Amino acid sequence: MKYTKNFYQIKSNLEIFERLKAERETIGYYNLPYQDTTEIKKYAQSITKKYVVVLGIGGSSLGARAIYEFLLPSNNYSKDLLFLETVDPLKINHCLKKVDLKDAQFVVISKSGNTIETISLFKYLNSLVEIDKSNCTIISEAQSSLTQFANDNNIKVFDLAKNVGGRFSVFSVVGLVPLAMVGVDIDNLLNGCKRVVDSFFKQEEYYKPIIRKARFLVENKSRFNINVLFSYSSLLESFNKWYVQLWAESLGKVNVNGTRQALTPIGLVGPVDQHSFLQMIMDGVRDKTVTFIKIDDLKDGTIIPKDSSKKFDNLSWGCAEDFTFNELLNMQADATIQSIQEQDDIPCDVISIRTVDEYNIAKIMFSYQLLVSCIGAFLQINTYDQPGVEYGKINLAEKFTQTS
Amino acid sequence: MKYTKNFYQIKSNLEIFERLKAERETIGYYNLPYQDTTEIKKYAQSITKKYVVVLGIGGSSLGARAIYEFLLPSNNYSKDLLFLETVDPLKINHCLKKVDLKDAQFVVISKSGNTIETISLFKYLNSLVEIDKSNCTIISEAQSSLTQFANDNNIKVFDLAKNVGGRFSVFSVVGLVPLAMVGVDIDNLLNGCKRVVDSFFKQEEYYKPIIRKARFLVENKSRFNINVLFSYSSLLESFNKWYVQLWAESLGKVNVNGTRQALTPIGLVGPVDQHSFLQMIMDGVRDKTVTFIKIDDLKDGTIIPKDSSKKFDNLSWGCAEDFTFNELLNMQADATIQSIQEQDDIPCDVISIRTVDEYNIAKIMFSYQLLVSCIGAFLQINTYDQPGVEYGKINLAEKFTQTS
Repeated sequence: MKYTKNFYQIKSNLEIFERLKAERETIGYYNLPYQDTTEIKKYAQSITKKYVVVLGIGGSSLGARAIYEFLLPSNNYSKDLLFLETVDPLKINHCLKKVDLKDAQFVVISKSGNTIETISLFKYLNSLVEIDKSNCTIISEAQSSLTQFANDNNIKVFDLAKNVGGRFSVFSVVGLVPLAMVGVDIDNLLNGCKRVVDSFFKQEEYYKPIIRKARFLVENKSRFNINVLFSYSSLLESFNKWYVQLWAESLGKVNVNGTRQALTPIGLVGPVDQHSFLQMIMDGVRDKTVTFIKIDDLKDGTIIPKDSSKKFDNLSWGCAEDFTFNELLNMQADATIQSIQEQDDIPCDVISIRTVDEYNIAKIMFSYQLLVSCIGAFLQINTYDQPGVEYGKINLAEKFTQTS
Repeated sequence: MKYTKNFYQIKSNLEIFERLKAERETIGYYNLPYQDTTEIKKYAQSITKKYVVVLGIGGSSLGARAIYEFLLPSNNYSKDLLFLETVDPLKINHCLKKVDLKDAQFVVISKSGNTIETISLFKYLNSLVEIDKSNCTIISEAQSSLTQFANDNNIKVFDLAKNVGGRFSVFSVVGLVPLAMVGVDIDNLLNGCKRVVDSFFKQEEYYKPIIRKARFLVENKSRFNINVLFSYSSLLESFNKWYVQLWAESLGKVNVNGTRQALTPIGLVGPVDQHSFLQMIMDGVRDKTVTFIKIDDLKDGTIIPKDSSKKFDNLSWGCAEDFTFNELLNMQADATIQSIQEQDDIPCDVISIRTVDEYNIAKIMFSYQLLVSCIGAFLQINTYDQPGVEYGKINLAEKFTQTS
């Protein structure tokens, strides 16, 4: 009898770091910060339509949407950016009410080129308004049938590299093209990415916090199987959704030992969820880690005003008058953080974003991508595939065959 | 030495049923379906403004929002309903751009009357437009300082009964008043509630599915500590948020034996999350139950059209042409359900909503309230309090004292 098995064990931080360094040769997202954006910017400037309508789902929309919705309230973009990411007919038609279809540029995004939701929406929109080279941009892999379609119809197409996965594609043409069209400073986005990736691979500022956090989460994954991201600004609502996708689809895997892995992500928004979910974190089972995100400077000085007529004198919280809403928001975050830290047994960390701009949102998003890569390496899984989402597609194709 | 302790044990279904029957005497939400709506409807009809702006957070906004956003795309309401539930200044001001403040009715909702977000927003809005009896409605407990304020200023106030908790208040004046203002059929909502509550307490149709599900979740809470709600329609996005609040704030508690309890809720929306989170459900650790919600009839016949020009002939999924988007959505749901069921070891159930109207959304919301009450009874917790959200408020008040 012969039995040999090298069971999985948590490797040293240095071994994980070496694995990530090796991944840079094959996994595309690491090198996106260094791409040349000249063609994207030039093309984006040539688009003069009032509306930019993205047809894409999951990785094809969540990243750009996170950035756009973070920046929108503090910027006056001359174009509106909309995302059609559902096949819900009521919702589609309700969304389209806001758009002048004749004054819209359609950006059709599908990595594989055969995403049923996106292709079906494309056909539907083409029945409402003729879609051709005058009002369409396509983003897909070079060999896909969608790219072929673009070439056949002289439609501008941007190639998405095969080694950039959908959920890691926000800083590729998938995110940059639609964002550049509405006026987002994409170079500043990439500057933020570079700041993080350079620092990480030189083992400087961002290296230790990222790799140590990854190690902590993996070493304690059985006790704390849920990772809460508690963002103290509604500007980060779509960022939360992007985080949930990145985390769930990358980390829900069977590892080299054949063991099922899962660190389950939850996105919360403060102060709203402070009135509800916080109850479960404070008094419930200790199965959650909590990461807070705060924005130091919202670039907004709106004040909670004092009313000189004394009309409000008998209402509570007079103490909050003359503070800005920005201050109130951060004091609420601090009060919640303090409540959690006083519990002693809830693992908790805090990330501060300096202000609301391209550079800062890119920094946090790229850090999260690196964090997920580290966790995946510690877990000994393939962070970049998604076999579990393929079953449903096969079942769906069968259903069409049965009912046709 | 004397030591007596009756340790917690799971009680029989009948004992739990008896506990819920007893709760009807003290917990207000059970009897809301039978309230008289005459005054609400009469008052709502007297409001002629174009915009209805709700100032409220958590339990004061999530329920009405869930119903409104479910019904909105298939109804042409003459008024717009907006919810200000954040203190994010950029977001507030961005929201307010869509509103003519002079043509708006402000509905200020706070159960306690001293919710800092709501009071601060109220003061801010009053600095933009005079808010008085001509354009304001207040909903609060009878003894609160906000009710006192309303009386002092001759502003119409609706009393929220003390024994109706925020997260169980959607079918009280908290939800019904703003919904009636924009034209939602609130009597049909209550009819849906009655159908469920009557059936449950007569131990008819809805009794067994609810109490058995509650029992299953509690008996398996250590193995499956996460409960995923996978709604196959973006119309249910806000419903998911309402579910997460109801579940988390009710069930994250210390029980009679001093043991921490938590069944952690996660809301997903299909088909979007089928492209991401599904990976974690399929291949990750078996720590999740999954409940699917489908809508049989979206009352929308929009078709995925065939293009006669043969332009799309080389794109994939030609098999989906001539199907409606409604059919595609439900086939996607069925394909995902099938994938999960083929796994054998993921607990899974499916709820079908017949169609998009008041009656059907009320039925599912009331069923969820009953389910939470049953789970709370099995867990031997107080389902209706929220001690864990109070700490933060105390910390916040201290911070204002320190910085003033």
